Amino acid sequence: MSTERDVLPADQEAWLDAIVYDEHGLVPGIAQEVTTNKVIMFAYLNRESLRETLRTGNATYWSRSRKRLWRKGEESGHVQRVREIRLDCDGDVVLLRVEQVGGIACHTGRERCFYRRLETEGEGGVRWVETDPVLKDPESIYK
Amino acid sequence: MSTERDVLPADQEAWLDAIVYDEHGLVPGIAQEVTTNKVIMFAYLNRESLRETLRTGNATYWSRSRKRLWRKGEESGHVQRVREIRLDCDGDVVLLRVEQVGGIACHTGRERCFYRRLETEGEGGVRWVETDPVLKDPESIYK
Repeated sequence: MSTERDVLPADQEAWLDAIVYDEHGLVPGIAQEVTTNKVIMFAYLNRESLRETLRTGNATYWSRSRKRLWRKGEESGHVQRVREIRLDCDGDVVLLRVEQVGGIACHTGRERCFYRRLETEGEGGVRWVETDPVLKDPESIYK
Repeated sequence: MSTERDVLPADQEAWLDAIVYDEHGLVPGIAQEVTTNKVIMFAYLNRESLRETLRTGNATYWSRSRKRLWRKGEESGHVQRVREIRLDCDGDVVLLRVEQVGGIACHTGRERCFYRRLETEGEGGVRWVETDPVLKDPESIYK
């Protein structure tokens, strides 16, 4: 695929054509913070949101619940400046390496959405434990 | 949710009940290498594969194409030793922090599946460029 594309003249949409979308036109996206290397969130993108991400330089997802473009940080100010976009072997998952403005990616006011860790406890059991503190009250983030 | 669970006695399945599965009983999983902090692959897990992952300590996914448990590395030997399991705010995405045995996660023989990067070229165009080398011929990995 890429060998063929590499010799073609630049086409504004060719990079979008190379992505494999699901039946809803979506592709899973992983956001990783470039400074900490932490995986901070997961969300879906569609063709339009990918185009907007490239155009603006800010991560723009597709909100499945609101059924509209979700310009991450549009309310909170916690935008994600995109430093690198990567595509996986099957072309159906994208990785956004971003600079998380404000240091808060999660709507709960935490650094990242993955704030629960599976930990062992007595008798061989396990449970989810919240390891990351709330850095900012969500009430004050979303006015 | 976790507040309630924290006071319950250890239940072998409670951690699995806390996860939100999609209509196919699956949850997206992100694998991140603990040494390099690179995001190396993305795959789905179901309840059974999560249970097996915890039991064996090796990442075990659900293969949607083969419709069976996929013990990562079962053919290649490139197993993923799980160091940490994390859950996101909505409970519907898991993050596996793993030690990638053999240093190869991708079926193409590369370190990671995300071996293509979007790069700018002349006239404002962009294209996917393969940045990571093939470390081992897939033919020799899957005999």
